[in-house]
Amino acid sequence: MQDAANKAWSGRFNEPVSELVKRYTASVTFDCRMAEVDIQGSLAHATMLNRVGVLSDDDFRAIQSGMADILDDIRNGVFDWSVDLEDVHMNIERRLTEKIGDAGKRLHTGRSRNDQVATDIRLYLRGGIDATLRQIAEVQTSLVLLAEQHADTVMPGFTHLQVAQPVTFGHHMLAYVEMLGRDSERFADARRRVNRLPLGAAALAGTTYPIDRRMTAELLGFDGVCENSLDAVSDRDFAIEFTAAAALTMTHLSRLSEELIIWMSPRFGFIDIADRFCTGSSIMPQKKNPDVPELVRGKTGRVNGHLVALLTLMKGQPLAYNKDNQEDKEPLFDTLDTLSDTLRIYADMMRGITVKPEAMERAVRQGFATATDLADYLVKRGLPFRDAHEAVALAVRYAEDKKKDLADLSLIELQSFSPLIENSVFDVLTPDGSLAARDHVGGTAPAQVRAQVARWKEKLAL
Amino acid sequence: MQDAANKAWSGRFNEPVSELVKRYTASVTFDCRMAEVDIQGSLAHATMLNRVGVLSDDDFRAIQSGMADILDDIRNGVFDWSVDLEDVHMNIERRLTEKIGDAGKRLHTGRSRNDQVATDIRLYLRGGIDATLRQIAEVQTSLVLLAEQHADTVMPGFTHLQVAQPVTFGHHMLAYVEMLGRDSERFADARRRVNRLPLGAAALAGTTYPIDRRMTAELLGFDGVCENSLDAVSDRDFAIEFTAAAALTMTHLSRLSEELIIWMSPRFGFIDIADRFCTGSSIMPQKKNPDVPELVRGKTGRVNGHLVALLTLMKGQPLAYNKDNQEDKEPLFDTLDTLSDTLRIYADMMRGITVKPEAMERAVRQGFATATDLADYLVKRGLPFRDAHEAVALAVRYAEDKKKDLADLSLIELQSFSPLIENSVFDVLTPDGSLAARDHVGGTAPAQVRAQVARWKEKLAL
Amino acid sequence: MQDAANKAWSGRFNEPVSELVKRYTASVTFDCRMAEVDIQGSLAHATMLNRVGVLSDDDFRAIQSGMADILDDIRNGVFDWSVDLEDVHMNIERRLTEKIGDAGKRLHTGRSRNDQVATDIRLYLRGGIDATLRQIAEVQTSLVLLAEQHADTVMPGFTHLQVAQPVTFGHHMLAYVEMLGRDSERFADARRRVNRLPLGAAALAGTTYPIDRRMTAELLGFDGVCENSLDAVSDRDFAIEFTAAAALTMTHLSRLSEELIIWMSPRFGFIDIADRFCTGSSIMPQKKNPDVPELVRGKTGRVNGHLVALLTLMKGQPLAYNKDNQEDKEPLFDTLDTLSDTLRIYADMMRGITVKPEAMERAVRQGFATATDLADYLVKRGLPFRDAHEAVALAVRYAEDKKKDLADLSLIELQSFSPLIENSVFDVLTPDGSLAARDHVGGTAPAQVRAQVARWKEKLAL
Amino acid sequence: MQDAANKAWSGRFNEPVSELVKRYTASVTFDCRMAEVDIQGSLAHATMLNRVGVLSDDDFRAIQSGMADILDDIRNGVFDWSVDLEDVHMNIERRLTEKIGDAGKRLHTGRSRNDQVATDIRLYLRGGIDATLRQIAEVQTSLVLLAEQHADTVMPGFTHLQVAQPVTFGHHMLAYVEMLGRDSERFADARRRVNRLPLGAAALAGTTYPIDRRMTAELLGFDGVCENSLDAVSDRDFAIEFTAAAALTMTHLSRLSEELIIWMSPRFGFIDIADRFCTGSSIMPQKKNPDVPELVRGKTGRVNGHLVALLTLMKGQPLAYNKDNQEDKEPLFDTLDTLSDTLRIYADMMRGITVKPEAMERAVRQGFATATDLADYLVKRGLPFRDAHEAVALAVRYAEDKKKDLADLSLIELQSFSPLIENSVFDVLTPDGSLAARDHVGGTAPAQVRAQVARWKEKLAL
Repeated sequence: MQDAANKAWSGRFNEPVSELVKRYTASVTFDCRMAEVDIQGSLAHATMLNRVGVLSDDDFRAIQSGMADILDDIRNGVFDWSVDLEDVHMNIERRLTEKIGDAGKRLHTGRSRNDQVATDIRLYLRGGIDATLRQIAEVQTSLVLLAEQHADTVMPGFTHLQVAQPVTFGHHMLAYVEMLGRDSERFADARRRVNRLPLGAAALAGTTYPIDRRMTAELLGFDGVCENSLDAVSDRDFAIEFTAAAALTMTHLSRLSEELIIWMSPRFGFIDIADRFCTGSSIMPQKKNPDVPELVRGKTGRVNGHLVALLTLMKGQPLAYNKDNQEDKEPLFDTLDTLSDTLRIYADMMRGITVKPEAMERAVRQGFATATDLADYLVKRGLPFRDAHEAVALAVRYAEDKKKDLADLSLIELQSFSPLIENSVFDVLTPDGSLAARDHVGGTAPAQVRAQVARWKEKLAL
Repeated sequence: MQDAANKAWSGRFNEPVSELVKRYTASVTFDCRMAEVDIQGSLAHATMLNRVGVLSDDDFRAIQSGMADILDDIRNGVFDWSVDLEDVHMNIERRLTEKIGDAGKRLHTGRSRNDQVATDIRLYLRGGIDATLRQIAEVQTSLVLLAEQHADTVMPGFTHLQVAQPVTFGHHMLAYVEMLGRDSERFADARRRVNRLPLGAAALAGTTYPIDRRMTAELLGFDGVCENSLDAVSDRDFAIEFTAAAALTMTHLSRLSEELIIWMSPRFGFIDIADRFCTGSSIMPQKKNPDVPELVRGKTGRVNGHLVALLTLMKGQPLAYNKDNQEDKEPLFDTLDTLSDTLRIYADMMRGITVKPEAMERAVRQGFATATDLADYLVKRGLPFRDAHEAVALAVRYAEDKKKDLADLSLIELQSFSPLIENSVFDVLTPDGSLAARDHVGGTAPAQVRAQVARWKEKLAL
Repeated sequence: MQDAANKAWSGRFNEPVSELVKRYTASVTFDCRMAEVDIQGSLAHATMLNRVGVLSDDDFRAIQSGMADILDDIRNGVFDWSVDLEDVHMNIERRLTEKIGDAGKRLHTGRSRNDQVATDIRLYLRGGIDATLRQIAEVQTSLVLLAEQHADTVMPGFTHLQVAQPVTFGHHMLAYVEMLGRDSERFADARRRVNRLPLGAAALAGTTYPIDRRMTAELLGFDGVCENSLDAVSDRDFAIEFTAAAALTMTHLSRLSEELIIWMSPRFGFIDIADRFCTGSSIMPQKKNPDVPELVRGKTGRVNGHLVALLTLMKGQPLAYNKDNQEDKEPLFDTLDTLSDTLRIYADMMRGITVKPEAMERAVRQGFATATDLADYLVKRGLPFRDAHEAVALAVRYAEDKKKDLADLSLIELQSFSPLIENSVFDVLTPDGSLAARDHVGGTAPAQVRAQVARWKEKLAL
Repeated sequence: MQDAANKAWSGRFNEPVSELVKRYTASVTFDCRMAEVDIQGSLAHATMLNRVGVLSDDDFRAIQSGMADILDDIRNGVFDWSVDLEDVHMNIERRLTEKIGDAGKRLHTGRSRNDQVATDIRLYLRGGIDATLRQIAEVQTSLVLLAEQHADTVMPGFTHLQVAQPVTFGHHMLAYVEMLGRDSERFADARRRVNRLPLGAAALAGTTYPIDRRMTAELLGFDGVCENSLDAVSDRDFAIEFTAAAALTMTHLSRLSEELIIWMSPRFGFIDIADRFCTGSSIMPQKKNPDVPELVRGKTGRVNGHLVALLTLMKGQPLAYNKDNQEDKEPLFDTLDTLSDTLRIYADMMRGITVKPEAMERAVRQGFATATDLADYLVKRGLPFRDAHEAVALAVRYAEDKKKDLADLSLIELQSFSPLIENSVFDVLTPDGSLAARDHVGGTAPAQVRAQVARWKEKLAL
């Protein structure tokens, strides 16, 4: 769009676009964040054009110098973005031509906005993925350090939010380190598919100029080129894949957030979150609310929504480029922002968690967390598991009536449920005994938790 | 949050929130659009407090005058919004207190931010619904006028994008008028549920002041009050219902958009869209692209995404208010904006459609659109429908081989498929004959189309 | 499809569909549940055809008698459904023709499968909505009776899962009664749009027979006819609207489920769910898990997913009918089933809840639930609210250090935070005092809760 | 659940589950498809238990022999599944115990249903992924062979459904081969994360038996073990990742489907789909409808919906296992089925496509497909691109008025838009000239298309 501001598209058009249409179709308000990668892409394209002989040395130097000026202006916040010029690409190209004249017009040789946009998004997203990978590692680091500190801090492991078996708080934290580890893998996998050069596809069919796409790819650090021009300008699966991976990461963090909120409730009181991540209430003076994890939980919906937006967008679209695709950017950018803010704040917040081992210990002693251990004890003494299960169930019922934990029953009381029980049972009924017994790869025994910590510290180069 | 800018929440807190947290949790960047309804709600609250004797006349007058000044500032764009003050409510309250002193502090008596926010969103959304209803009527008006003009313009009716039977272009347009009519009904239904006052629920349990909620409701034009304080501050189903209705409206427009795009393709050439709704290409001089309908089609995903975001947000949230709910606003506001822009641009665009009856007529003659009429003709002459169907299928196959339409076959050729065929068959094989025969409520006969138009013109008061 | 089993569609086709295609495109495995409404619709259609003179009395009687037989067979489970006959409609029509000969073939006069399917879905869904309305009322009844019983059972009201202010358990239950009340309204609103007759639209354009659509509508209990034939066969917004309302209902129940799960956790211990809604564990003998609310919470995703499926399905579909629409049924049917099972089980489960008032009372005394009351107390004695808020915050901090509730501090200790405090303060600091003070419409005062209960008992005719 | 049919869970329970609850919570109706992998997993577990000395040789042999019988029964369809036994696992275990007595009860040593279910899903999904990879390759094969056949068949390349530039039909087909290639990569990446062993996590914390998880992993062909027991039983991200990849694949096929439908519309007439993938109409004898691509387009919504269901399901779930997760299976299984059927039918359907080169050629000559070539021609003769663009736009406008293509204008007419035009221009204005000029990697020149074909034939080992 060379001069949309004042006139129609070309001699073919009888009237300019209306103001409402201009606003409806313009993207510069949100795509101007791609300015730096747009310039980076243009300079690589110009370099290639120059090397293959399509762009003269003089023109090339003019473009380099003009772009340097523009980049300065943008970084200094003095670049004047115009909605009339529709998008970031036309804003920059127009400014370049104003600065350096005809040479600026020659930059667009052998490319079109379709492949230019596709290239810019990929460059931008590649940067976003690299940041994401670093930010995930930061959160993992916070969690691993917390896990190390609490490798043997006992807490009740829950299933169905009912007390199940004792675990260590460190083991629990490491479950999230594993989830985030898979998230990282997914982002790294997505990066391989993002990091392909669409430039050279031109509008849809390639160009008549003798371009060297592999050279441009190399200049921009791409792993290769998109091998089919129609595909290059029309597909956005890389954006959907990224957003799906982001939705999973947010989902994982929504789970940890749920737990932090529950644990910080006075009924649990397992942890405290540092004041700087909490807010109070305008009318309730006693309140200290875990706002940050609540917002993270809520923002999961936001990213899920973006994923649906992008999938809906692409559904049933014929090749090659359609204007629908302009709608790919806002969901993608907001996903990047949301994910980045959330990871950064989480890395910091987890360093500000105060763990309350006494409350956890108290909780583990209420809910019959070692009932399974008692059953295992009976099995090892020869009782079939089914009978052991039933004997313990009756013991639990008895203890519940007495408002005691199993460990608080006397040997005589316990023996009324099975004569196989002896004094040694009390070793088994302690949380520590229960923990220590689960000593295999992936188990919650403190020794295993420490092994997990060591493995992750190595991976994270801590 | 009285003075979050410089210090912690209260004496209970040891440290202020960090900068990142402040940004992550602040909402003023997007909720400042509720400023006017916030002031409207505050003034109604103050009026009620004054009438029930909780707020003195002097304080009330000071609040009225202070709010008038603030409203002026906001309308003139000179109000200084501060992220430190977190949201629109605290920004306005703080400014009021700066202006009028202690009276400003008394405004918050008997309410909390929880019920204040809920009230503001409902007031804001109510305005949005009213605008939506007007905008839908505008689109319907454009469509009805187009339908009136083309009540007997024949075009091929498609099923499976295969030619099925002749319909009129007016009839086709009116199908969308019906869809939009149901959309309006849905918004009107949603409005009844939006238009209930939550104010007075305070933080979650009501307040100890002798407030009169029905009076406040009446002052603000609400149909009634939310009857349970916990529900009042915690539910957002009205926002979800609105967004679901918006998703349906966008879905309907996505269908019309798809058709406009297909019809404007040179292979169809049924219509032309005015140049002001189209764009060209930076490298292909011949291009005139239907950008607006394409964007509408794409933006359908956006609204579907917001719906998913809101549903995900509310899933599994315990009562009463949780910070997650702050995430309700951006999807809701963007849905309102997207819907409003889309409806406005559509009302205008449909007035700029050029219909090409010859192309439609040509298309109706290719694809055997009157084959059903021929079968009906045979049935009326005594042939069982199944046999008639088969005879016509064979005639179609023959005509296809000859590359002719059924109407172009000679009587003798036609009779080779059934001796029941006579010269009168040619009346039936014309598109006009086919149209005219479907003369019942809802049928495509021009007389019926005109009746539909008349009904809608009355409804729309045209 | 008259004889798809053994041969191609018509003389126009060269080959029959492949087995895989047959399975891929057939719907009889899931649409056979519409058999009764299909017959109901056919009989009404036949009645109308007979009355307008298109169908002879003999044929009509034969159709009536044949359909009665078929209905018997279906109800007795002896009807033989065939995938070769693709869908419920062709299965029944073929069987009818086998039974009564040519008269059966005349039933399809003046209609097509497109309008027949659309009619059947609406009839079926209308029945589903009516059942839903009854089932919601059942759940409301369980909740209202529970609320009545616990109109003054004090529990901590939470915001952010932190103790906020005392509420009554009855008040809390009634919040859900309100939500479900709005859900009912939405289903009733949707019913008005479902209850319109598409029959007579035929394939897409109406029919050449002199049908009387209003008569058919009346026979089937429809409120009116779809006024545009293209719209009648192509739109499915009624299914989407229903599913959106169902998603909201499930979302509401997901919230209650979350609360039941949390309340039944031993850390809370506020309630117990009857054993018949819980399961144990194969290895942990002590476990009693709240499976039902967990499944309800999980099934919310299922219904959200169906909503997305339907919206995606309709996005960008050109008029009139496309085969895509066959995909409308499974999500709709599964939504109906899920909603119905969930409501029925919930109505029963809520009658089996054991409330533990002592645990709730204990919890309300931990978390400074009456801090706001103390601030209000100071305000009423002349302190500006801000100063009162701060004084209470400091008192809370002090009490927290002492591990006491505010009510457990001595008068002297309390007075150290404000000299305005006198002995009367202890009335205010009790949960009961706090509850009673919130005595306005929607407030949690037991008197208000009883008024809410009375209002709902009247509405529900209890 | 050992004997849920007739009694309560254990001595702890007072009442059995109700019939409705039994049905609501049972999964055997849909998880019985995992029977074979359940047995496979059990046998590996038993082998490991035997090797580490926990299970005697006799017991192990009894288990092997009992399981062999059960597998036979299942394969022969004579296994009697019972809803009372809740799920596939309990059905098989109960049957085993009936067959072999106490040895059957010992199989469950050192595992729980939580890790057993997680293992089974992974095994089942791994098989599904392997099938998917083969099925994608089949579709790619059909497309590559079609592309090879039409490496130089010219068709109009569209952007915005407006004619843009000539491309070859082969080039267009290869765009989809690329998309499917990335889909394959995604499934292969997901497989790495699926292929980890959760068994040994037991209920959530590991087990007290001296199990060797790596041995079990090796026996089952897993790449490794899940390193944290809490994570192992609680996360389902592998299912979400698979479903997201499936949604993308379906989205890609929805695009091709949209194109097939448009291309088969008589207005386009570019292709014909073999009769066996089409259906006719019950009332319109001429109809031949592309049902299969329409259904594929519609089923895209189904898979998107499943993705949303799974994401919603996991949002905010606390660790470790909750019953919500039972809802993971139906969406996952239906995704697998939908994807598998769709890929298989697509592979077959694409082999039955008839391409109509004349219609494509005719279309490429209408819509000024070579306008860009004319502009490039002028640029190469020295005109600045902007001026060239404008000159061509005016030529297009002129030609449009004359209802001619650019190539049909006389040299004198063309020269009136630029004196630089000479007779050589006519080489450039032909579709073949345009195609041949785009001769770089990814371009549409037939030579490049053939290179793409060769590359894919090698990859696919054709």
